[in-house]
Amino acid sequence: MDGFSLPKVVKRRVNALKNLQVKCAHIEAKFYEEVHELERKYAALYQPLFDKRSDIVKAAYEPTDEECEWKADEEEELTDEMKEKAKLEEEKKDEEKEDPKGIPEFWLTVFKNVDLLSDMLQEHDEPILKHLQDIKVKFSDPGQPMSFTLEFHFEPNDFFTNTVLTKTYKMRSEPDESDPFSFDGPEIMSCTGCTIDWTKGKNVTLKTIKKKQKHKGRGTVRTVTKTVPNDSFFNFFTPPEVPENGELDEDSEAVLAADFEIGHFIRERIVPRAVLYFTGEAIEDDDDDYDEEGEEADDEEGEEEADEENDADYDPKV
Amino acid sequence: MDGFSLPKVVKRRVNALKNLQVKCAHIEAKFYEEVHELERKYAALYQPLFDKRSDIVKAAYEPTDEECEWKADEEEELTDEMKEKAKLEEEKKDEEKEDPKGIPEFWLTVFKNVDLLSDMLQEHDEPILKHLQDIKVKFSDPGQPMSFTLEFHFEPNDFFTNTVLTKTYKMRSEPDESDPFSFDGPEIMSCTGCTIDWTKGKNVTLKTIKKKQKHKGRGTVRTVTKTVPNDSFFNFFTPPEVPENGELDEDSEAVLAADFEIGHFIRERIVPRAVLYFTGEAIEDDDDDYDEEGEEADDEEGEEEADEENDADYDPKV
Repeated sequence: MDGFSLPKVVKRRVNALKNLQVKCAHIEAKFYEEVHELERKYAALYQPLFDKRSDIVKAAYEPTDEECEWKADEEEELTDEMKEKAKLEEEKKDEEKEDPKGIPEFWLTVFKNVDLLSDMLQEHDEPILKHLQDIKVKFSDPGQPMSFTLEFHFEPNDFFTNTVLTKTYKMRSEPDESDPFSFDGPEIMSCTGCTIDWTKGKNVTLKTIKKKQKHKGRGTVRTVTKTVPNDSFFNFFTPPEVPENGELDEDSEAVLAADFEIGHFIRERIVPRAVLYFTGEAIEDDDDDYDEEGEEADDEEGEEEADEENDADYDPKV
Repeated sequence: MDGFSLPKVVKRRVNALKNLQVKCAHIEAKFYEEVHELERKYAALYQPLFDKRSDIVKAAYEPTDEECEWKADEEEELTDEMKEKAKLEEEKKDEEKEDPKGIPEFWLTVFKNVDLLSDMLQEHDEPILKHLQDIKVKFSDPGQPMSFTLEFHFEPNDFFTNTVLTKTYKMRSEPDESDPFSFDGPEIMSCTGCTIDWTKGKNVTLKTIKKKQKHKGRGTVRTVTKTVPNDSFFNFFTPPEVPENGELDEDSEAVLAADFEIGHFIRERIVPRAVLYFTGEAIEDDDDDYDEEGEEADDEEGEEEADEENDADYDPKV
């Protein structure tokens, strides 16, 4: 329905409703600010558990037998034959690596198990990410502009001297004056990375290529070495800058859109439930959900509202 | 990665992390309870705006010129020719319907514009839904089990004597003991409808069919009239009951899954921004979002995590 098929007096009243709707959008913005405050409050409650996780991963703490008790469903369902095989495999592994410290390659494995992250991962990144010991989310202080920082904590390594690499995402929770109805909760507006102090010769974000140059006059050929950007996860820490006028070329825009999605995903899913991405449990569950919903949609309602998939609200599971 | 490729000492530590993760799920449940409290608080802030909307829709209040001022983008972009055409159409409409009260067929139009709702709509439902004047969301009181009620307010009509039809959704915000990792926010667990006091002969949820019966012995044929269920939106108020043992047949399960989705959608999208579904603006915006994200996914990351689409958290737009 377009507005023009309505009688003038009705259209007038619809405009009044639209003005009420703008007021709703501003109230909604306040709601999301309060949710953000709640998230900050709960971040403090989660932190002791995340710190313990980190201590176990990096072998700073050995959990007690009681802390390690787990009645896994999978094991119950295994046949004796499978159990035997598993036991043999375990013993083999135990022999191979006599005394592993903590949980080796914990975060690297998480990265490899999550498509969104593994897509960024290059072979040369892997030896570096073996030294990643924790990812923390830090929220901006109350009263400050809404933002969060991802902190990547590394053990001392041969690749760079930083112990922490950071990526900060600035957010905005207010309706756009020119398009208030598109408001649907806080949006990431921009991000900043950090300088990585690479050890000489270890910078995987650059590569040297050899190029032949022909002298225009003499026709002689010489080989020059050029340094060019190289694909790497660590480019995550040097995102494209948004110029003052806010206009970006298409490439940078696509890079940033993907970057915002990754930043959000690390904050919202990876950090809160890393172990489930390590074991793959989070990934399996997601697939299950997906299939179920797909089937229901087919059987019951035909095409779902496109909106359903992009709903960015606080959104209880139905 | 399955757990069996890990050395025993490492697997033990992973179990410790999983136990920490269960604790996180219980903290998360508390978070969602607090978000629910916030939603209750904000419902009270939105209510005066929704009440005014209702008053305008049902002609209980005529908005002032100031309240009706709206500088629509669409109009600016129109060519003179289109404007002329629109003006003529408007004049024609004005002549057709001399003095429309409020915004006629406001909620019926919303229903027609939203696929999820229009799929339920039958032709015989439309004359009834013309009398729908408001949909309100009422949250359960603090300290009570988490639930919400959709109230459908009707003006006096020839179809039933109720002025309000209700549908209540009971929710749960706690991890399932047997599968704590699947917890992802409050879930709708069950729903109850209400009795509609149909005027004689007006019950659109039933139809009479004529059936020919042949007498086994005599071979004579008689025609009997049978009352059977009829497709109607108003079946929404008599959802399948969940038996005490919690087990449902496949049909009822599918009906309830669709029902929960619709209830959630009415609460979360339709009631808060009804005017945008009336004008179609909410629907267009959603499509825009969808296309954009689709493109980005194709260009930048290939397949997205299935999880992204099913993320049921409070989920800032990225």
